[in-house]
Amino acid sequence: MIKIGIIGGTGYTGSELARILCRHPGVEIAAMTSRQSAGRKVSDVSPFLKGYTDIAFSERLDPSGLDLVFVATPHGVAMEEVPAILDSGAKAIDMSGDYRLRDPAQYEKWYGHEHKDAKNLGEAVYGLPELFRGEIRGADLVANPGCYATSAALAIAPLAKRGLVGSRVIVDGKSGTSGAGMVPSARLHHPFCGESVVPYSVGTHRHTPEMEMAVGLFSGMEPEVFFTPQLVPIVRGMLSSCYMGLAEGADPGDLSRAYRDQYGGERFVHFVDEPSIRAVAGSNHAHVGFREARGTVVAFGVLDNLVKGASGQAVQCMNLMLGLDEGAGLDAPGLGV
Amino acid sequence: MIKIGIIGGTGYTGSELARILCRHPGVEIAAMTSRQSAGRKVSDVSPFLKGYTDIAFSERLDPSGLDLVFVATPHGVAMEEVPAILDSGAKAIDMSGDYRLRDPAQYEKWYGHEHKDAKNLGEAVYGLPELFRGEIRGADLVANPGCYATSAALAIAPLAKRGLVGSRVIVDGKSGTSGAGMVPSARLHHPFCGESVVPYSVGTHRHTPEMEMAVGLFSGMEPEVFFTPQLVPIVRGMLSSCYMGLAEGADPGDLSRAYRDQYGGERFVHFVDEPSIRAVAGSNHAHVGFREARGTVVAFGVLDNLVKGASGQAVQCMNLMLGLDEGAGLDAPGLGV
Amino acid sequence: MIKIGIIGGTGYTGSELARILCRHPGVEIAAMTSRQSAGRKVSDVSPFLKGYTDIAFSERLDPSGLDLVFVATPHGVAMEEVPAILDSGAKAIDMSGDYRLRDPAQYEKWYGHEHKDAKNLGEAVYGLPELFRGEIRGADLVANPGCYATSAALAIAPLAKRGLVGSRVIVDGKSGTSGAGMVPSARLHHPFCGESVVPYSVGTHRHTPEMEMAVGLFSGMEPEVFFTPQLVPIVRGMLSSCYMGLAEGADPGDLSRAYRDQYGGERFVHFVDEPSIRAVAGSNHAHVGFREARGTVVAFGVLDNLVKGASGQAVQCMNLMLGLDEGAGLDAPGLGV
Amino acid sequence: MIKIGIIGGTGYTGSELARILCRHPGVEIAAMTSRQSAGRKVSDVSPFLKGYTDIAFSERLDPSGLDLVFVATPHGVAMEEVPAILDSGAKAIDMSGDYRLRDPAQYEKWYGHEHKDAKNLGEAVYGLPELFRGEIRGADLVANPGCYATSAALAIAPLAKRGLVGSRVIVDGKSGTSGAGMVPSARLHHPFCGESVVPYSVGTHRHTPEMEMAVGLFSGMEPEVFFTPQLVPIVRGMLSSCYMGLAEGADPGDLSRAYRDQYGGERFVHFVDEPSIRAVAGSNHAHVGFREARGTVVAFGVLDNLVKGASGQAVQCMNLMLGLDEGAGLDAPGLGV
Repeated sequence: MIKIGIIGGTGYTGSELARILCRHPGVEIAAMTSRQSAGRKVSDVSPFLKGYTDIAFSERLDPSGLDLVFVATPHGVAMEEVPAILDSGAKAIDMSGDYRLRDPAQYEKWYGHEHKDAKNLGEAVYGLPELFRGEIRGADLVANPGCYATSAALAIAPLAKRGLVGSRVIVDGKSGTSGAGMVPSARLHHPFCGESVVPYSVGTHRHTPEMEMAVGLFSGMEPEVFFTPQLVPIVRGMLSSCYMGLAEGADPGDLSRAYRDQYGGERFVHFVDEPSIRAVAGSNHAHVGFREARGTVVAFGVLDNLVKGASGQAVQCMNLMLGLDEGAGLDAPGLGV
Repeated sequence: MIKIGIIGGTGYTGSELARILCRHPGVEIAAMTSRQSAGRKVSDVSPFLKGYTDIAFSERLDPSGLDLVFVATPHGVAMEEVPAILDSGAKAIDMSGDYRLRDPAQYEKWYGHEHKDAKNLGEAVYGLPELFRGEIRGADLVANPGCYATSAALAIAPLAKRGLVGSRVIVDGKSGTSGAGMVPSARLHHPFCGESVVPYSVGTHRHTPEMEMAVGLFSGMEPEVFFTPQLVPIVRGMLSSCYMGLAEGADPGDLSRAYRDQYGGERFVHFVDEPSIRAVAGSNHAHVGFREARGTVVAFGVLDNLVKGASGQAVQCMNLMLGLDEGAGLDAPGLGV
Repeated sequence: MIKIGIIGGTGYTGSELARILCRHPGVEIAAMTSRQSAGRKVSDVSPFLKGYTDIAFSERLDPSGLDLVFVATPHGVAMEEVPAILDSGAKAIDMSGDYRLRDPAQYEKWYGHEHKDAKNLGEAVYGLPELFRGEIRGADLVANPGCYATSAALAIAPLAKRGLVGSRVIVDGKSGTSGAGMVPSARLHHPFCGESVVPYSVGTHRHTPEMEMAVGLFSGMEPEVFFTPQLVPIVRGMLSSCYMGLAEGADPGDLSRAYRDQYGGERFVHFVDEPSIRAVAGSNHAHVGFREARGTVVAFGVLDNLVKGASGQAVQCMNLMLGLDEGAGLDAPGLGV
Repeated sequence: MIKIGIIGGTGYTGSELARILCRHPGVEIAAMTSRQSAGRKVSDVSPFLKGYTDIAFSERLDPSGLDLVFVATPHGVAMEEVPAILDSGAKAIDMSGDYRLRDPAQYEKWYGHEHKDAKNLGEAVYGLPELFRGEIRGADLVANPGCYATSAALAIAPLAKRGLVGSRVIVDGKSGTSGAGMVPSARLHHPFCGESVVPYSVGTHRHTPEMEMAVGLFSGMEPEVFFTPQLVPIVRGMLSSCYMGLAEGADPGDLSRAYRDQYGGERFVHFVDEPSIRAVAGSNHAHVGFREARGTVVAFGVLDNLVKGASGQAVQCMNLMLGLDEGAGLDAPGLGV
C-alpha cells in the first residue's frame, strides 16, 4: 500500500484530505501532524472521521518511508517543509500558495516576503489537472491551486486558448466561508457575515497573479485580471463570474464548442447550461457555463472550495503523480440538494 | 392629514410601504387593496403591523379623495391602474417597471408586450431622489426605480457624470431573496437556494436598460451595461459590484472626490470605505464605495432591496412630491447587526 | 448484478436514492420512474448525477425482473404501488408513511384516510436497522422510517429499553428544509424561512405515533410523545432534542452505559459527547448524546434528514434484505464542515 | 433634555442601545465609553449610526450630571461600575447578569464568583415591564433581563400565575447568533455554525435560575426549569419552546384566556396563533402563543434577542424609570420579512 503523510492535519484543508483519503482504495494515511493536537486521535479532533481512521496526530513526521506528503500549512511555512520532503525522496503537494507563482519576484510582491526555496519553486508544477495533466504526471512537487484560481481558470482558459476573448478579465468571486479557514475572526463571525455579502482584498488578493499565470501558461494569452473576492453566507461552494470581451468574429457557438472540446472527455469538469453550486457541493466536480450578450461574455466557474477547490484536486494530482487512476477516492457525486 | 392609498397591499413591496407609512408623521393610509385578502384586516395578514393600523383591505380603492396612490402591482397591471388615478387628480407612484423606460419601444423590447399608456409614460419621472430630485418634486407620476438599478446607478452615476470612467459597465449584482417577491417558486425554494448563489436572467434582466437610462439621463454619458443578477441566501440586502475602466488621466483621488461632491450633503446615501449590507439593512440608507487597481474601477452599491431599493425610496419620492420633509418616516438607522 | 427500481425518482428522496445507489458495488439501477420527466435522462433532471448513470426516466416500471423496488411517492400513493411489486416477487421498500403504523386504525386517524392495503400493512417491517435488524433481514416489505422518528427513536429507545426514563417524552425537533420536499410552498419560501425558526404541525405531526410505535416495539415501554417539529434555515441536517424524566435510581452513568451497550458495535450510530449536524451531514451516520440535570434527561439525535433520515437508511435496509454488506454504498464520511 | 450615558458602547448591546436612543424623542446620549475605541467617533465604529450621533467614545464617563447610565459590560465588571453611578445620584440599568439573581448565594453558584455589591443587589428590580411594571417605575437600579429568560418568562408566567400548568418546565431555546456577542469564537465561526444547530451549556446555562426567579416572583409558583439553549443560523431572533404539563381541570380555552387577560392591553407583547420571528425582528415586540395536546402544553416565546431581548427592553425600562411614555423610541414595527 502506498503511504501518505499530511503535515497540518487539523485545518479544514488537512481534515478534508483525510476525509477523502480514508476511503481511497490505493493509499493509506501513514502519518498526520498537528502542533496543537499532537497525541490525540484524529477521529477525536475531527469526529466525522470516527470509524475511518485510527491514527493519532504526531508532532512531526518523517518523510522517509512515505511516498507522498501533503503540506497543509499556511503559506510561508510550507516552503520550510518542502525541501526536506523532496530530499527524502518522497513527492510533495503543497496546499498553500508558496509554490504557485513561478517567479520569485512575483511571490515577493504579492506575499510580502522573500521566497526561501527558489530552487524547488522553479520545479513545481501547477496542479490543475484539466489544464496541466501531463506536467503533473511527472512532477515531484505540485503546487495545489487556490480555490478562486481554479474556478476562474477553468472558466477562462478554454476561451483564451482559442482566442475567443480579449485579455482583460474581471473576476467577481463569491466564496463559501469555509474557504477562509478555521481560525475565528471578525469577518467570519456569524452575526457579521451570516446575512451579508462581504468584499475583501479587492484588487489585491493573491489569487490574482495566480489566475493570470494559470491562464497564461495554458493559453499563451497574457491576461490582465481584476479580481473581487466576496464572502457569501454559505459554508461550502464557490461561484466565480468571469467577464471578458468577445473577440471580433467570434460567436457564442464558438464558445460552446471551446468548452465542449476542452472538457468533453473530463470526468470532473462539466460544461452545463446552468452551473450549480449544490450540484457539485461535497464532490470533486466543477461546472462551467457562460452567457454572452452585446459583445460581453460572462463565464461561470463553480465548485466546492474544499474539494475541487482544495483537497479533492490535491488528491487528483496525487493520483496522477503516483500513476493511480485519476479519479480514485473521488467518486462521490455532488450533494444535489 | 394627507391621505394615501396603496393598490396591492399584500406583496412584499406593498406591506413594506405600510410598515413605513404607519409611522409617518404627515400622512395616513386611507385605503389598501388586495384581491385575495379583501375584507381582512391588514394586521391579520401582515402581523407585524398589529397595533400600527386598523384598516382592512378593500377590493378596490377610489382615488378621488386621496392625495397620492402607490401602485404595488406586477408590471403590466400597473399601467391599467395609473391613468384613473391621475385623472382623479391624485398623484401616483408606480412600484413596477411600467413607467421606468421612457421609450415605449424599449419597454416593448424588454417587457415583451406593448405599453398601453404611452401618454403618461412620457410624463413619468424616474424616482431616484439623489439623482433627479428636482424633477420628482414637480411630478404627478413617479416611476419608482428597481432595486438593482438603484444600487448600480448610485455607484456609477457620479463617476460617469464627471467623465472619470468609460461607458462599458459590467454590473455583477447579488440580491437577497425578498427582492424576488412573495410568490413561492423553485428558485426561491430554501433547499434550492439556501446554500447556493444562483445567477438568473443573465444579460437579459429588465434592469439593464433601466441602469443605462438612469445613468445616461444623469450623466450625459451613454453607458452600455452588461448585467448579471444573482440570488444570495440572505433575506434583505443587495450588493452590486460595478466594473468600469478608469478614464485616461483620472486618478483614484478624483473618484473619491466625485462621490464626496455628489453625496456629501445627502441624508441617505453615504460614501464609505467598506460598504456594508448589515449597516443599511432595515433602513432607507445606501452605501457606495470603490476600489481601483490597474486601470479598473469596481464601484459598490449597497442597500436594503425592500427599503432604499423599493418602498423606502418610494416614500422618499412621496415626501418630495407632497412638499414634506424628504426624510419623514424614514428615520430608522440600519440594523447594524 | 442485482437489479433495482425506483418509483418516483425526481423528488429529493428518489434522487438521493439514485445518488447513493449509483456508487453501490452490488446493485444497479435498472429503472426509475417519473410522471413529469418521463423520457428525459436522469442526469439531465438531476445534474449532480452526470457521469454516474445513463438511464432515462420511464413513465412506469415493470417490477418483474427487478429484485427490489423503492417506492418514493407521497403517502397514499405508495399503498397503490406496493401490492403489485410484492406480487411480482420483488421486494419493496416504501419511503412514505404508508406502511409505518401497524394498526390500520392508527393510520386512518393520523393520515386522514383509510388504508387500502391492510394485508401487506401487517407484514411490513419498520426499517430502522439499529433497532430491528433481524426482522429487516427477512422482510419482503420494509417501511422506511421518517427522519424525525429515526432521530428521536435512536436517542430514546436505548434508555427506554433499560427502564432508565419515564414514559412521557417531549421531542423538540429541528429540521433542515430539504426534509419538507421539493415542492415550493409559502413555508419553504426563502424570504419567509431563511432567517426564522418555524414550528408547524405541533402536537399533530404524523411522526408522533411513529415514534411511539418504534420506541414501544423496541423497548416494551409504552411511551407517550409530544412532538414539536420546527424548520430551521439549513438545507440538510436534523437535531431532535428529546426530554424525559430520569427514572428513580438511575444515574447518568447508567445512561452512558445504555448508549455504549446499544451502539458500541454499530457502524452508523455513534454515542458522542457533542452531537454535531456537520459531522454527519452528507452521510448515513447519526450521532446520539445526552445531558442530565435535576432529574431531567435531554437526549439528542442528529442525522442528515436525506441520508440516515431517508434514502441512506433505505439503502441500509436494502443491503440487509438482499444479504449484502450492511454498509455497502454508504461509506461516505460526514462532511465535517 | 434628559442625559444618558452608556458604559461599554461597542458591543452589540451597547451599539443597539445607541441605535434606539439616537431616535428617542426625550433623551440624548451624552456619553458613551469604550476602552478600545476611546477617542473615535461612535459613527466610525458603528457605521449604521452615521448621521445619527456626533459624539465620540470616551475612556470613562462621569455619572454626575447624567440622569441614567446603561452598563453594557460583561458580568463581573458591571457590579464594579454600578455603585458609583448610584452614589452620584444617577439611575442605572445593568445589561449583564450581575443584578438579576436576588440571592447572592445563587449568584455565586451560577456565576462562579462572589458578588461584590450585595447592598445594591438587594435593591435591584428585574426589568421585565410586562411582569414587573410597578416596581420598575420606582427603581433606581434595574437588572435588564436576559434574552432567553425574557422569551421564556413571557410565555410561562401567565399560565403559572393562574395555576394552569405544573411547576416542571422544559425550555428548549433557539437563539440567533447575535445573542452570543461580538467576540469571534469557534462556536460562532460561520463554517461551524452556519449550517448547523448547536446546543451549548445544556442544563447549566445561567438563564435557568433567572427564568425560575422571574416566573416565581410573578406567579407565586416555584417552577423547576430544565433549559437547553441552542444556536441556530440566523442573526437576530429567538424562539423558546416551553413545555409544561396541563394542570388538572384546565382546558385550552383557559390558556388562551390567560394570555389575553395578561397581554391584551400590552403594546409590545402579543398573543398570536403563529408566533413569528420575522414579524418581530428589528423591533421591541414579542409574540407568545401555544399548542396543547394530550395534557402537554408548549408555549412559544418569540422576540428579537437584541431588542426586546436586550436593548429595547432596557429602553422600555428607562422610559418607566424616568416617567416617559413607555414606548418612546420603540415605535418601529417588526421587519415582517
